Amino acid sequence: MNLATVSGVNKSIQYGHRRALTIPFEKALQDTKEALLKEGFGVLSEINVREKFREKLGVDFHNYVILGVCNPLLAYETLQHEIDIGLFLPCNVIVYEVQGHSVVAVIDAEKMLALAGNPKLELAASVVNERLQRVLEAV
Amino acid sequence: MNLATVSGVNKSIQYGHRRALTIPFEKALQDTKEALLKEGFGVLSEINVREKFREKLGVDFHNYVILGVCNPLLAYETLQHEIDIGLFLPCNVIVYEVQGHSVVAVIDAEKMLALAGNPKLELAASVVNERLQRVLEAV
Repeated sequence: MNLATVSGVNKSIQYGHRRALTIPFEKALQDTKEALLKEGFGVLSEINVREKFREKLGVDFHNYVILGVCNPLLAYETLQHEIDIGLFLPCNVIVYEVQGHSVVAVIDAEKMLALAGNPKLELAASVVNERLQRVLEAV
Repeated sequence: MNLATVSGVNKSIQYGHRRALTIPFEKALQDTKEALLKEGFGVLSEINVREKFREKLGVDFHNYVILGVCNPLLAYETLQHEIDIGLFLPCNVIVYEVQGHSVVAVIDAEKMLALAGNPKLELAASVVNERLQRVLEAV
């Protein structure tokens, strides 16, 4: 796959925010985890997409990790307002390699949770977005 | 928390589909996992929300599990079209207890992936929805 055909390093996305870095992938992943911790997010799941594709499909994919992150208190409050909101939790942060860069991208929680149409979720979504934005700036 | 105030058993949701069952929670969880497997979904993450809240916040929450599920081939195709779509992967299926019922709910992948505004994702999203709907009918 020629990644240049599907994604430029500086491409913007409608459903999140991303940042391309010149540091190696492993360093970007480690820095992202540390920044998440400082902003009060626990990493509840870590999916190594490259390994999964090798194991399940026998194909070689580039480095790509999906982190499922959550602030327990914000998640608890959100679930009180909307019991099914677990369908959108945890929030995702991805770290991958493309065109010699490491890319870190974070979900836009406000856009995603807006699908629920519940105004009571707006505050928590906005707090999550502010914190994820700081994570992106810190790496 | 009085769950009746936040969610009726038969409440419908805009961002997914749900089904209330009279079987015990553990049986609902097991049946859901088996149905997912039959429809070609692997469970990549399993988050026990009740345990997490007890551990992190010291609060007692009802049974609530978030399964992150993925069909490797569909995920691979989707990532070829949209490298940042990992922000929405894996797709979530939740199983929880409320008002003496077990509830199983699945994400509406078409609504969620529509946030990307990429028509190339529509087919995979539609296939995921069809399969998740069958999972819901099977439990």
